[in-house]
Amino acid sequence: MKPLKNSSIKLNCDLGESFGAWQMGLDAQVMPLIDQANVACGFHAGDPTVLVNTLNLAKQHQVQIGAHPSYDDKQGFGRRSVKMNADELKHLLWYQIAAVDGVAKSLGLELSYIKPHGALYNDMMASPALLDTVMQAVASYHKPLKLMLLATASATEHKQLAKGYQLELLFEAFADRRYKNDGSLTPRSQAGSVLDHQSALAQVQQLLQNGTVQSDTGDSVVIQADTLCVHGDNPQAVALVQSIRQLLGSR
Amino acid sequence: MKPLKNSSIKLNCDLGESFGAWQMGLDAQVMPLIDQANVACGFHAGDPTVLVNTLNLAKQHQVQIGAHPSYDDKQGFGRRSVKMNADELKHLLWYQIAAVDGVAKSLGLELSYIKPHGALYNDMMASPALLDTVMQAVASYHKPLKLMLLATASATEHKQLAKGYQLELLFEAFADRRYKNDGSLTPRSQAGSVLDHQSALAQVQQLLQNGTVQSDTGDSVVIQADTLCVHGDNPQAVALVQSIRQLLGSR
Amino acid sequence: MKPLKNSSIKLNCDLGESFGAWQMGLDAQVMPLIDQANVACGFHAGDPTVLVNTLNLAKQHQVQIGAHPSYDDKQGFGRRSVKMNADELKHLLWYQIAAVDGVAKSLGLELSYIKPHGALYNDMMASPALLDTVMQAVASYHKPLKLMLLATASATEHKQLAKGYQLELLFEAFADRRYKNDGSLTPRSQAGSVLDHQSALAQVQQLLQNGTVQSDTGDSVVIQADTLCVHGDNPQAVALVQSIRQLLGSR
Amino acid sequence: MKPLKNSSIKLNCDLGESFGAWQMGLDAQVMPLIDQANVACGFHAGDPTVLVNTLNLAKQHQVQIGAHPSYDDKQGFGRRSVKMNADELKHLLWYQIAAVDGVAKSLGLELSYIKPHGALYNDMMASPALLDTVMQAVASYHKPLKLMLLATASATEHKQLAKGYQLELLFEAFADRRYKNDGSLTPRSQAGSVLDHQSALAQVQQLLQNGTVQSDTGDSVVIQADTLCVHGDNPQAVALVQSIRQLLGSR
Repeated sequence: MKPLKNSSIKLNCDLGESFGAWQMGLDAQVMPLIDQANVACGFHAGDPTVLVNTLNLAKQHQVQIGAHPSYDDKQGFGRRSVKMNADELKHLLWYQIAAVDGVAKSLGLELSYIKPHGALYNDMMASPALLDTVMQAVASYHKPLKLMLLATASATEHKQLAKGYQLELLFEAFADRRYKNDGSLTPRSQAGSVLDHQSALAQVQQLLQNGTVQSDTGDSVVIQADTLCVHGDNPQAVALVQSIRQLLGSR
Repeated sequence: MKPLKNSSIKLNCDLGESFGAWQMGLDAQVMPLIDQANVACGFHAGDPTVLVNTLNLAKQHQVQIGAHPSYDDKQGFGRRSVKMNADELKHLLWYQIAAVDGVAKSLGLELSYIKPHGALYNDMMASPALLDTVMQAVASYHKPLKLMLLATASATEHKQLAKGYQLELLFEAFADRRYKNDGSLTPRSQAGSVLDHQSALAQVQQLLQNGTVQSDTGDSVVIQADTLCVHGDNPQAVALVQSIRQLLGSR
Repeated sequence: MKPLKNSSIKLNCDLGESFGAWQMGLDAQVMPLIDQANVACGFHAGDPTVLVNTLNLAKQHQVQIGAHPSYDDKQGFGRRSVKMNADELKHLLWYQIAAVDGVAKSLGLELSYIKPHGALYNDMMASPALLDTVMQAVASYHKPLKLMLLATASATEHKQLAKGYQLELLFEAFADRRYKNDGSLTPRSQAGSVLDHQSALAQVQQLLQNGTVQSDTGDSVVIQADTLCVHGDNPQAVALVQSIRQLLGSR
Repeated sequence: MKPLKNSSIKLNCDLGESFGAWQMGLDAQVMPLIDQANVACGFHAGDPTVLVNTLNLAKQHQVQIGAHPSYDDKQGFGRRSVKMNADELKHLLWYQIAAVDGVAKSLGLELSYIKPHGALYNDMMASPALLDTVMQAVASYHKPLKLMLLATASATEHKQLAKGYQLELLFEAFADRRYKNDGSLTPRSQAGSVLDHQSALAQVQQLLQNGTVQSDTGDSVVIQADTLCVHGDNPQAVALVQSIRQLLGSR
């Protein structure tokens, strides 16, 4: 496949998810291939030293940085929903954003966006009230930051809601996940929800050329994405990122 | 005792040390009486919501705010030393400072200084290498913040060291603790190390009038303090702060 | 009111909920008044030293001990549901039960029952599947322990379910909470859900004399309780326990 | 090298050190090769589900189990000393031992020994007072458990001390670490402190045949070991365990 040089779609990846003595993710291999690093803030993964190392790696490869805040749940890696009221969630988000923001600045970097992690991301996409709280939290942080969320059939409404907060959105698509007709992802528990290397590449190519993906019912679904979420947990994932990078053309 | 109106000495107090369902400190009673609030950052005490509530209380009473970072030790309330290398300590401090800084800013407040907590404070006063690391960490944070430390016989050397980092220092004295001849505090384990109400008031008065305290050997020790550390854990402590406030004159 | 000497109903109370430097509960005042202490296991509250101190206090007053396990959530005091699969929950319960069991035994005490805490208790009463998991976990622990749960209109079914596990149940009623017609409690968010001193005492008296409580609709609801849950968080709560103790007669 | 069939020395290895989503150690590969599994208790590593999985793996391969308690320090993987008084340490040890003991029993296994982890192990070998506290803690647990510690020149004194507590000891040697003349290990920070595959094998062979190791000064040091500590963190470590297993003969 020939690189689609004129594409402006970005690649984003979750990074900085080691914790203390526990390693996770092939950060050093993935960072040179991506445009945007979603950096763990210490609540589902990461710690102050992991954070600094991850930010330094992003700096070295001139990768944009986003804070990747989550529920307070290291044991569950932020994959378990935690019920809290809107104020508590706002404080939790501010705290994590602030930690990454100030550390990044001290390393000469500027935080540019927020992408909620795991259960918080899913809850935000499923609950308009929670999405509203997240938007309000990001918008009321003391400096402008974009919010990254899933590009779905509700994108227009999401933009409308964000406008009220003067909040800019970044819509993301998934390279290796099967879509439903409403632009949401089929749950991981469902067979075929994660695409193999070739299918993922084909999905990316269709997305870049036609702005569509093929859903689980075989329908063509329009997806307007600013950025593609890729993974760097294992060698296979990294190989896929390399192929996608080639497809997009060099950074 | 008549107020010493011309005194410019400040009162500082550790606040925001509740955690989740656990309350600690009479913050609402102490805040109106002090000038500087040392706000827990979530590592020995505090959490995102406690932090926001404490900062809002400081805002309401126009009290300066300092970050009160500590070793990562909720179980031991930051009173246990944790061995880490200089880089790890710098990252730990940056993280905590950044969290308070960014949350404060989002509430319309400016963080103005850093006062290490508990074992970290004691270790910093006991080890020149650790003090150097702390200074380096605070000085390399992305915006200028003062460092609060104990006014001892080594104050001149401490100023010299800080100068190298272009770091401004705030020297503090203790109202209710017995001093040694070198300007350090007698350990809490020693009888008479904590002064009663009257003795504490007398110590403050002597400090304000003569710039000295009487040491455990009865000698007069010169202490040049910018701020007085007071406590707000219990009604007796708050009563002492009220008496000291009266002595200093209204804020 | 004259003591109802012939009553065999017990009083149980949540204890051992301090954590590190944070105190909670008037354990020393309540312990002499109760029959059964639900001891925090270190996951929503408590720590190894708090646990030992609490068990020693129970020993001194010859109070039966129960483990009071919870979701892993100190920040939320175990009041937030955490989604986990049945195996994970079983392991979580075993771990906490085992910790209390072995420490108690080393102090010469025998653990006698399990009472889940907070959100886990509520989830267990609301979800038959979760109750089944809890029963299975307690029953498969290596020694026989009773399970304490809410006496509701479903008590007969609960006994049936427990029988399948050869598990003995302890049914509890609440002294100071308003009941619904199905024997469940009105939520704390609802006005009048917590009874004042006199109403609570009246509810206990009716329960002891007639085996019923008056529901929020004014109906009489049959409640067969082995034990009454009381609280010891504050002086008012302790005063109520004292009154109830008097009503029941000395231990 | 021909198997030394008559050797009765055991192989022990630290296992169960994953945590939540973070994997550590090649437990499934190492378990079939060893005799004794030192199982993390959830304070430096491990969690209730990791614990159950590790114990089940030990059961499957009929490996003895020991609890591997540590200071409360997940961030530092138990490698940082935490100052606590003797009572607090005893409670901390009891809690961890009890958790593993009760969970093991519920899986049909019997806990047989205790081996402190990381900084706690080092502190115990360096401080007679701390060793005394550890011995007292293990001996006062409600059932007899052996204590595993380093075989050094002080072994006779250690046995004497243990006798006072009616505590049985298990002395361990290290396959892949360079020794000093007093039977202690050269610190990891020192060059040559960790032996390569061939040197480690040679050290094991000398230990089995002559009951000695060659120290860093080239002297022959008598080491009476009941068990050899091996590692399973990476493929190289596992390869060494396989070679040592071959040397010792099949289990």
